[in-house]
Amino acid sequence: MAEEVKVELFDNPRFGRDYTITTRVPEFTSVCPKTGQPDFGEIIIEYIPDKSCIELKSLKLYMQGYRNKGIFYESLTNDILDDLSGVCKPRWMRVTSRFTPRGGITTEVVVEYKAE
Amino acid sequence: MAEEVKVELFDNPRFGRDYTITTRVPEFTSVCPKTGQPDFGEIIIEYIPDKSCIELKSLKLYMQGYRNKGIFYESLTNDILDDLSGVCKPRWMRVTSRFTPRGGITTEVVVEYKAE
Amino acid sequence: MAEEVKVELFDNPRFGRDYTITTRVPEFTSVCPKTGQPDFGEIIIEYIPDKSCIELKSLKLYMQGYRNKGIFYESLTNDILDDLSGVCKPRWMRVTSRFTPRGGITTEVVVEYKAE
Amino acid sequence: MAEEVKVELFDNPRFGRDYTITTRVPEFTSVCPKTGQPDFGEIIIEYIPDKSCIELKSLKLYMQGYRNKGIFYESLTNDILDDLSGVCKPRWMRVTSRFTPRGGITTEVVVEYKAE
Amino acid sequence: MAEEVKVELFDNPRFGRDYTITTRVPEFTSVCPKTGQPDFGEIIIEYIPDKSCIELKSLKLYMQGYRNKGIFYESLTNDILDDLSGVCKPRWMRVTSRFTPRGGITTEVVVEYKAE
Amino acid sequence: MAEEVKVELFDNPRFGRDYTITTRVPEFTSVCPKTGQPDFGEIIIEYIPDKSCIELKSLKLYMQGYRNKGIFYESLTNDILDDLSGVCKPRWMRVTSRFTPRGGITTEVVVEYKAE
Amino acid sequence: MAEEVKVELFDNPRFGRDYTITTRVPEFTSVCPKTGQPDFGEIIIEYIPDKSCIELKSLKLYMQGYRNKGIFYESLTNDILDDLSGVCKPRWMRVTSRFTPRGGITTEVVVEYKAE
Amino acid sequence: MAEEVKVELFDNPRFGRDYTITTRVPEFTSVCPKTGQPDFGEIIIEYIPDKSCIELKSLKLYMQGYRNKGIFYESLTNDILDDLSGVCKPRWMRVTSRFTPRGGITTEVVVEYKAE
Amino acid sequence: MAEEVKVELFDNPRFGRDYTITTRVPEFTSVCPKTGQPDFGEIIIEYIPDKSCIELKSLKLYMQGYRNKGIFYESLTNDILDDLSGVCKPRWMRVTSRFTPRGGITTEVVVEYKAE
Amino acid sequence: MAEEVKVELFDNPRFGRDYTITTRVPEFTSVCPKTGQPDFGEIIIEYIPDKSCIELKSLKLYMQGYRNKGIFYESLTNDILDDLSGVCKPRWMRVTSRFTPRGGITTEVVVEYKAE
Repeated sequence: MAEEVKVELFDNPRFGRDYTITTRVPEFTSVCPKTGQPDFGEIIIEYIPDKSCIELKSLKLYMQGYRNKGIFYESLTNDILDDLSGVCKPRWMRVTSRFTPRGGITTEVVVEYKAE
Repeated sequence: MAEEVKVELFDNPRFGRDYTITTRVPEFTSVCPKTGQPDFGEIIIEYIPDKSCIELKSLKLYMQGYRNKGIFYESLTNDILDDLSGVCKPRWMRVTSRFTPRGGITTEVVVEYKAE
Repeated sequence: MAEEVKVELFDNPRFGRDYTITTRVPEFTSVCPKTGQPDFGEIIIEYIPDKSCIELKSLKLYMQGYRNKGIFYESLTNDILDDLSGVCKPRWMRVTSRFTPRGGITTEVVVEYKAE
Repeated sequence: MAEEVKVELFDNPRFGRDYTITTRVPEFTSVCPKTGQPDFGEIIIEYIPDKSCIELKSLKLYMQGYRNKGIFYESLTNDILDDLSGVCKPRWMRVTSRFTPRGGITTEVVVEYKAE
Repeated sequence: MAEEVKVELFDNPRFGRDYTITTRVPEFTSVCPKTGQPDFGEIIIEYIPDKSCIELKSLKLYMQGYRNKGIFYESLTNDILDDLSGVCKPRWMRVTSRFTPRGGITTEVVVEYKAE
Repeated sequence: MAEEVKVELFDNPRFGRDYTITTRVPEFTSVCPKTGQPDFGEIIIEYIPDKSCIELKSLKLYMQGYRNKGIFYESLTNDILDDLSGVCKPRWMRVTSRFTPRGGITTEVVVEYKAE
Repeated sequence: MAEEVKVELFDNPRFGRDYTITTRVPEFTSVCPKTGQPDFGEIIIEYIPDKSCIELKSLKLYMQGYRNKGIFYESLTNDILDDLSGVCKPRWMRVTSRFTPRGGITTEVVVEYKAE
Repeated sequence: MAEEVKVELFDNPRFGRDYTITTRVPEFTSVCPKTGQPDFGEIIIEYIPDKSCIELKSLKLYMQGYRNKGIFYESLTNDILDDLSGVCKPRWMRVTSRFTPRGGITTEVVVEYKAE
Repeated sequence: MAEEVKVELFDNPRFGRDYTITTRVPEFTSVCPKTGQPDFGEIIIEYIPDKSCIELKSLKLYMQGYRNKGIFYESLTNDILDDLSGVCKPRWMRVTSRFTPRGGITTEVVVEYKAE
Repeated sequence: MAEEVKVELFDNPRFGRDYTITTRVPEFTSVCPKTGQPDFGEIIIEYIPDKSCIELKSLKLYMQGYRNKGIFYESLTNDILDDLSGVCKPRWMRVTSRFTPRGGITTEVVVEYKAE
């Protein structure tokens, strides 16, 4: 999926200092690949930037790319981590997804990346 | 109980990476074996998948299997852990049950499993 | 349904005075007649008693009678009002049902009875 | 019950003006006459005083008089209204009782008095 | 828009009695016709049925029809009222829409219909 | 008490239009005249101004005048209404006081004034 | 102030039907004319449109016009009502302002307009 | 106090596995030995069972034994730990008590036991 | 300040066992030494007693000693820790103060003591 | 930016003891350098003072210096840490900024400083 990613970056204004940026996207929606029904949830991205920070408007557009895509919770959380860490190359990143109930059941997936 | 379990699995989309899946089942009900009265509670399943993830629709049906079964809180929490970890063979799993008050008293049971 | 109703009554301790009794049953469950899946909700009964008040233990057992019954929200709310007002003959009664989300949608039904 | 009541009064400091006093007693307990088990709840007293206001320390002691008394919710709410309005003779009074769940069911009783 | 509406109905189980049905659709999304960006909100439908009630699964599908449609808040709230009241012919209906903030500003629109 | 009152006024910027101003003073403290112990509460003042509005800094100082004064809840609520309505001469005013629990009991007093 | 107002309008999509639009601006700030310190609050605008509705982006810019203006709560609430009702000519409008505490005191002002 | 304790046990259904049981008793009341006034609070019992678990109905009756007993917070929390750990012999136990305010002050006591 | 302290003690009922007592004083008020205006806040005292526990009524009176004293947040939090640990000689103590907003800014100070 | 900083200090009243001061500034506003639109958020400053503490009134004025400044979230959080730690030379300091949603997305930045 990385080839379609258009997440833009800007220079980390304090390159060299370890600090944390947390971005919440509470208006996330995708489509269940099994039923074709929309899923609704929140995506939370936490990271320690290295050389670059993620520009928020392009992040919003990237997230909108899932609006009509059929994908399971476990896959999309891992995909978002792979895409964002691949572009931004942070020192550390964690992606959390929380979905509203389906059949009375809610799901949360938490995935982490650590630069070697 | 394992022979009646029909929890289905699907392949872990990121086999090899440690990450956490949390599933909440807030609409759980069983029957008190002493009084015959229904109990109501929430079951929370957290796990780090290994080769397989738990399919949610079959999990819902598995949980509904307790609807008319007489069983104590301590037993059912341990049984759910045994059943789910037996089928899905995760790296780690925790099952939490929280029951609504009976006689003004609430109970929560937390059980963990760790692959050796 | 009235013939199976076993809601018991006790004498209104202040017959002649208009006052309100509100009873909440937050642990209500029935079955969707279309999908066979359990529904979960809360039933709220408000009434001004006339000669009789509703005994709570028998009300609980009456509510448990819906546990494995296939019935739509709109019907069961009206049925509960008919059953309870038929037995207890209050001056006024209101039954409210609030169900947890199905397909991301919640429903509440409010039905009233007034003695003529 | 009125003969044992020791609720004390003090002169309304603005006799002639209609205003409202609301007193909450969130630490109320009595005993279920059927099971002998304690009940826990909150009593709320709202009134428009006429010549007299209710002294709070004596009200607290009056409420403690129910601590080991076996009495149903409907009766005690009406009794409290009768006792307090009988002593304090307000222009208007409302007593509300809200009890914690028993068998998963909660009850609230609301009773009013109006001077003629 | 009425020609594309496929909201299904079922017979009111208590035709003749006035009662209220409230349905919440908290996972509503449409598109801003000016910016092309998605909007997120909640739609609340309250009505007193006459001969027919709205079937919930078809209502969900009807709401999903707005997922990729460019439309302003004020128009869509009025359109939903017109569509639903046109099909279901209730005695009374109210549609409320509440949208998440855009530019730090939130909007709520409330529209009512009353059968003549 | 009116002679010590130093509440200052400013001209109503829309004299002639009926509108409401609500001021909350959540950091109010006085002394119980019976026990000598401090009481803590919130005072809420709502009014429709006529020619004058109440200046907030002087109101704060007026409220601080109760800090070491021994006075009952019922009296001080009435006194504040008399003092403020006497100085500001509003079209309508309501004063509400809400006190934190003493002996497990909380009290709220609501007093109104209406210009003739 | 009306001459500087640039609030834009769009045609009411259901001219002739009475319905309500509520817009919240929780990020409002102005300056206290007495101390020169910034004030922070929320402005809520409710109205029944006649021929025109208020366009939200221009409303946001109008609200930003108060960012560095010295003005008291009572005046700005009345000014906003006059400006918005003057431009949009609604059937009814209400403006509410709620300000965060200053000296431990909060203030809310509510102003209404009704077309004759 | 241990001789009057009638807390009953049942066999741990997963003897050998370490897991946690948390029981909340929010309707606890005792008497202040200094003033004779009732105290109200919540008792929370967390433990890792060894051979035995605590039966809840007998626990409720044990807790009711404090209803008319004069005892300080610090003593009763330690006594409950001693009594329950003495009977049930858990691997680990923690007792927490939280009392409602007296004189505007609340108190919480936390006591732990660990099997050697 | 230690010479004026009259905090009373009572014997630790379980001398030798490490356990924690947490006392909250949400009705604390002192005076700003710079402006002369009252400050309002909450003081939280956590400690592991050694030989003695702090008697609550005398603690309340000790806290009231700050009612009309001009002192900064940082000083009073340290003073309370010094006074209480000096008298009660606990194994460990932490004092937290949380003050309500002044100029839109809130402050919390946390100070710890550990017996050597 | 350090040359314009006018944050004032006062002597740490317990120099030598490690303790924490937390100051919240919930009424922070700056300007987005890209769109020119105002941003709103909360700044939280936690520190362990060494020789000096930060005087709150000058901190408020320092924060107001961002009111009309165009700056990104990541830069301003780092700048505030640099400015405050440069002047006050604490043993440890953490600055957290939390901004209200823009385009449905919220951001939080956390930066730490540690004296060497």
